[in-house]
Amino acid sequence: MISNSNSEGNCDTHYASFSSNEKEVLYKTIFSRRDVRSHFISGRVIPNDVLLRILNAAHHAPSVGFSQPWNFILIKDKSIRAQVKESFLREHKKSISMLDDDIQRQEKYTSLKLESIMESSINICVTYDSTRFGPFVIGRTSIAETGVYSVCCAIQNLWLAARAEGIGVGWVSILANEDLQKILLIPKHVKPIAYLCLGFVKEFAEKPDLEKIGWLPRMELGNVICYEQWGVSTSHSWSEFCNIVDYYKTND
Amino acid sequence: MISNSNSEGNCDTHYASFSSNEKEVLYKTIFSRRDVRSHFISGRVIPNDVLLRILNAAHHAPSVGFSQPWNFILIKDKSIRAQVKESFLREHKKSISMLDDDIQRQEKYTSLKLESIMESSINICVTYDSTRFGPFVIGRTSIAETGVYSVCCAIQNLWLAARAEGIGVGWVSILANEDLQKILLIPKHVKPIAYLCLGFVKEFAEKPDLEKIGWLPRMELGNVICYEQWGVSTSHSWSEFCNIVDYYKTND
Repeated sequence: MISNSNSEGNCDTHYASFSSNEKEVLYKTIFSRRDVRSHFISGRVIPNDVLLRILNAAHHAPSVGFSQPWNFILIKDKSIRAQVKESFLREHKKSISMLDDDIQRQEKYTSLKLESIMESSINICVTYDSTRFGPFVIGRTSIAETGVYSVCCAIQNLWLAARAEGIGVGWVSILANEDLQKILLIPKHVKPIAYLCLGFVKEFAEKPDLEKIGWLPRMELGNVICYEQWGVSTSHSWSEFCNIVDYYKTND
Repeated sequence: MISNSNSEGNCDTHYASFSSNEKEVLYKTIFSRRDVRSHFISGRVIPNDVLLRILNAAHHAPSVGFSQPWNFILIKDKSIRAQVKESFLREHKKSISMLDDDIQRQEKYTSLKLESIMESSINICVTYDSTRFGPFVIGRTSIAETGVYSVCCAIQNLWLAARAEGIGVGWVSILANEDLQKILLIPKHVKPIAYLCLGFVKEFAEKPDLEKIGWLPRMELGNVICYEQWGVSTSHSWSEFCNIVDYYKTND
């Protein structure tokens, strides 16, 4: 029901390698995924099997020490959502005031649609439980934050699966975690990581909204790569690779 | 060179929907991705175009306010890697002592292979730069950690792209960030998030290593889903969905 593959995420031998076409499908998913804040199709419900596949994809993310520290709170209830929306409105107001010294940017910012809490089909709050299978979690002994990192990997799996299913996902982060904690009755040892709005969409934008409106440009790939150490933009042993990164830049 | 799709991640109209087969490819990638600590093919170099595609996939992750706060430090140099390995050995020793009260578990833990720093083809340190396009970053005004979350989404993209390319990735987190900071000359305002070891592998394991050896079981999907609020395992408006989650459980 979940997919042709074993529901536990085991892989058959044919899973060993990917054809060129299969690789292209993955890249297509990655490049066409968007953070969606509009274009939701009102009233179109996500079928149960689709939602289950998306959640199962999230559940098969890597996790530090196999701790699987995530939970997914599925929210349809409009009164709960309305409370979350109030938290957004309060936090949004605060954020607007941070641009009081830059009226032009403030106006642009204020004009942006930044959430679809009420009009999306469902909301999902993804949380991190630091006590799951603890306190000794393999790989979490030196860097405690790795538990949260696992939850983020799950969110990205969910996002890509949703994209392939034709479902838009918008991550609303202009919220107070204390509010989410109260509204959703989340205990103290559990931390809200993401508040996602999901639903079928009319279209996926060609480019990220903030790139399209010129808020920020996409950085060149070469500018986020370093060689051997921080800030080093070239290296003898990486010279061929540096060249193709440069070539890629000039042929964008 | 990067892929058939536009290198900027734009999507053509044919990108709008995915066939059943295409969806299966994404799920195959997600389910067969592994955290790899052995089976690296010694001496097999990752071709430049493959590495570029993997990094480009990472660079097309979602990021809060389109801030793209990541950097990728590519490391081939064996003397640098040896220093990172020393950090691992120190931190590993500390972690072993945390199990002094549970000798049986300690022995099992000590027997695990937890890194491939020296024998993998390359290492990649993925970092978070909190100053990138800041200080006002859309969506980061209420929850500062969302910047780090973006970097984790990039790591998951990288991981999935690598899997499709036949390349294993192992995330080594038994390290001191202070050591990484010194060894890789990472400035204070930049935070190491992940230290990854990449290379072609002989095989991808059928199951996660820690599941296979019985360290921890995979949780049932139904046990990480809540309805409307934390801890609620059923709900009237979710009754049909609850049923299929239960059905899925009994038919694993």
